[in-house]
Amino acid sequence: MKLYDSTLAPNPRRVRIFMAEKGVDYENIQIDIIKGDNLNESFLSINPRGLLPTLVLDDGTVIDETVAICRYIEEMHPEPALLGTDAISKATIEARQRHMEFDGLLAAADAFRNSFPGFSSRGLAGNAGSVEAIPALAERGKNAMVRFYASLDAALSNSAFVAGEAFSIADITALCTIDFAAGAARVPIPDQCSNVKRWHADVSSRPSAEA
Amino acid sequence: MKLYDSTLAPNPRRVRIFMAEKGVDYENIQIDIIKGDNLNESFLSINPRGLLPTLVLDDGTVIDETVAICRYIEEMHPEPALLGTDAISKATIEARQRHMEFDGLLAAADAFRNSFPGFSSRGLAGNAGSVEAIPALAERGKNAMVRFYASLDAALSNSAFVAGEAFSIADITALCTIDFAAGAARVPIPDQCSNVKRWHADVSSRPSAEA
Repeated sequence: MKLYDSTLAPNPRRVRIFMAEKGVDYENIQIDIIKGDNLNESFLSINPRGLLPTLVLDDGTVIDETVAICRYIEEMHPEPALLGTDAISKATIEARQRHMEFDGLLAAADAFRNSFPGFSSRGLAGNAGSVEAIPALAERGKNAMVRFYASLDAALSNSAFVAGEAFSIADITALCTIDFAAGAARVPIPDQCSNVKRWHADVSSRPSAEA
Repeated sequence: MKLYDSTLAPNPRRVRIFMAEKGVDYENIQIDIIKGDNLNESFLSINPRGLLPTLVLDDGTVIDETVAICRYIEEMHPEPALLGTDAISKATIEARQRHMEFDGLLAAADAFRNSFPGFSSRGLAGNAGSVEAIPALAERGKNAMVRFYASLDAALSNSAFVAGEAFSIADITALCTIDFAAGAARVPIPDQCSNVKRWHADVSSRPSAEA
């Protein structure tokens, strides 16, 4: 299978780490999102929404969404489980993974896309046409990231990982969110968030974090 | 089990419809989000993020996120399957359900929250503190909803339901998104989107749509 990927963006990295944790091999195809190659006809014929990552199976089936790709890989390669093993753990991990997305990743994306000069008319990701950046939304995103760090720090005072005592997709989303926020969006982990720092050092030391 | 619910908001309705399709019973507790009762201490002690829906199991376990609640219910009551039955259908439904959320529901929420006078300092849902509405974001959300309708119309020209030939959680998300967009956010289905209209009449006629 082929993974259409960009090493610059947080969502493709979520899938690369997920694949690495599972030990799954795939062909990697880089798409230059800064040049806008995700909006070229050749890529839009594969994924009309123009978004990465996109997985194409050997039979041509396209799975065009980050968590859907992870779901497919979990089904085909159940071990180690990253989406839970019973009703409660599956629900808890899903909830925490979505908290990381809605409270963290969307905030970091708002902060980045609405302040990065190269995206001044690409305020929304993918094939959304010309969308003006909104400076007030960049500010709202930065403030939301600060709240996100505080909330995550409180949660990690009681548990080793984001969704409890086992590493899961929720940790992958949080790691990719924070590295993206600290880099592209310039909202690093606040000094006082010692639990986030301990957790970040821990998950960053896993071999999968290099994927 | 108890579902903390609001009949005014789209996310709790997603869970009510999901439960109705499964024939699952629960105790319903209404929270007045216009008065801000979701931000009272009594509710924040159950869900610190201050968001609905929230499910509390008989043993006290809290599941505080829409899709995570659906995941739990699907695990406990597999029939009829609303999240897929094999690796490909699970991935396809997850992808389509997330397209409905990220392209549709978030756009409608931006359009509503940033234009509704009562939410002028509640630009983000839940326990996010005072967040100023951003009028330009309401406009961006309306434009994104128009693109969403066009994209959904094209997809529904080839299939009975949002994720293919079976009713799924993707239809539930799309229905709740569109009814919310048409009502609160004032972006109704465009006249030319005949496939969306056919599908909307079809899913609205299911008994679960009354839930």
